[in-house]
Amino acid sequence: MNKDKIITIVGLGVVGGSYAIALSKKGYTVYGVNRSQQSIDDAIAVGAIKDGANTPERFFPLSDVIVIALYPDQIVDYLKKYGKYVKKGCLISDVAGIKSHFVDMIGEVTPEGCEFLFCHPMAGREKRGFKYADDKVLKGANFLIVSTNDTTQDAIDRMSEIVTDIGFGRIRVTDVDTHDKVIAYTSQLPHAIAVSLINSDDEDSETASYIGDSYRDLTRIANINEDLWSELFLGNRQNLLTTITRFESQLALLKAFVESGDREGLKDMFIKSTKRRLALEDKKKNNI
Amino acid sequence: MNKDKIITIVGLGVVGGSYAIALSKKGYTVYGVNRSQQSIDDAIAVGAIKDGANTPERFFPLSDVIVIALYPDQIVDYLKKYGKYVKKGCLISDVAGIKSHFVDMIGEVTPEGCEFLFCHPMAGREKRGFKYADDKVLKGANFLIVSTNDTTQDAIDRMSEIVTDIGFGRIRVTDVDTHDKVIAYTSQLPHAIAVSLINSDDEDSETASYIGDSYRDLTRIANINEDLWSELFLGNRQNLLTTITRFESQLALLKAFVESGDREGLKDMFIKSTKRRLALEDKKKNNI
Repeated sequence: MNKDKIITIVGLGVVGGSYAIALSKKGYTVYGVNRSQQSIDDAIAVGAIKDGANTPERFFPLSDVIVIALYPDQIVDYLKKYGKYVKKGCLISDVAGIKSHFVDMIGEVTPEGCEFLFCHPMAGREKRGFKYADDKVLKGANFLIVSTNDTTQDAIDRMSEIVTDIGFGRIRVTDVDTHDKVIAYTSQLPHAIAVSLINSDDEDSETASYIGDSYRDLTRIANINEDLWSELFLGNRQNLLTTITRFESQLALLKAFVESGDREGLKDMFIKSTKRRLALEDKKKNNI
Repeated sequence: MNKDKIITIVGLGVVGGSYAIALSKKGYTVYGVNRSQQSIDDAIAVGAIKDGANTPERFFPLSDVIVIALYPDQIVDYLKKYGKYVKKGCLISDVAGIKSHFVDMIGEVTPEGCEFLFCHPMAGREKRGFKYADDKVLKGANFLIVSTNDTTQDAIDRMSEIVTDIGFGRIRVTDVDTHDKVIAYTSQLPHAIAVSLINSDDEDSETASYIGDSYRDLTRIANINEDLWSELFLGNRQNLLTTITRFESQLALLKAFVESGDREGLKDMFIKSTKRRLALEDKKKNNI
């Protein structure tokens, strides 16, 4: 069974750290690799990892599964540098929010006899660092596996078993193009909107007295990791631009209805949005 | 003390119903007026009101405070019709999300010897009807009092005592123009955005598998009461158009950075938005 397996997490940030916590709770043997020693010490202290180091030479030869929870742009270089320590048969994976800009380079750096499985856990927090890691964010979250011509069913099955075990909800296998296209809409566009919304405040220091849950909800993710998200945005440029343009058209339509006083036009938009939002809740409830 | 006072709530929807529940829990004597009998029966059954009726003739002569929790456009007509039953010295109030389009008409319909106090509780839910009323939505919520030349400090004090008692957080007194201008930004713009976001999905039925908390947060209020919100949007047209335009400029700026690959430009936007979001949390924490 999987639980006899040794898993190394590279990068004990919010996502990697949350994995480590959840995996250790479930009885897996977990090692952690992280640039800063503080997160390693913290992770050991709370029992999220059995042992840790700043580089992976000690752990990769032991590991049956490796999760590289680094920024998307770092993954290829990391494997190039440390791939030689990975043992044969190891399942290597990532947590990157976009795939197309590095997917073609993975083949060259994946060690002989190993498989790299592209994964995107739809879980995270606006904060960064191990101290904000929490296995609760994984519970029921969507988990995406991005399949290429090199992906085997065996790898998908092995990973699915593990992530189901640590609490993820729906697992979906998709292809690179679909993934990056849909993610531009469901993840990157909301972040672009939240940032634009809060930045369009006219620095009226009184705003805080005038807000309700709607403004709080819509700006929560405006607290954003600028290094990670500038990378995600620029790594998925064309898809993001397309989805921003589609959104702009809808907002322009709504604005035109307001301008012309078209009450029926507005109502039609609201009825449509309500129907879509309710359908989303139903799908979540029924896990479809 | 206030608790000897008799309060009538007109309109047992989500907001009026939540008021009724909270007031009754606090020991006030509460009557409810509502068009449909079902909500009255439900409100009596859960102890939210002592008695109810479809029209206010029985309750207005007894009431020290009246809260008209109807749509903004209905308030003036309602008082015109039923103002004659209100007893002298009564404090009459509303819960409308915008004020300027009816504030000038209130003087004429407010009964002799009574005062009308414009109030905007920043609490609500995306659902409608008494069955979704819940006093929890009021807890800690911002409460806005919109002051005019006719507003007395006594009315502000009386209302403040009551709404503090039922759990509202920060109470802020403002003027009509400021209120409607800031509300366009903090409440109406987020709704316009949420609707446009979910309506810009290309009906890819697969979207539900690809969403995380960010998309869920940003589309929650896309489930929207089309009658109320078309009225709020059109009743605050110019302010809403201005605020949409400001938002569009920020999004266009972000889009330009993505298009030109300007990583530093993006990072600056993200750093600014993060700072603003953190300041908002601090202000909430410190209740300023």
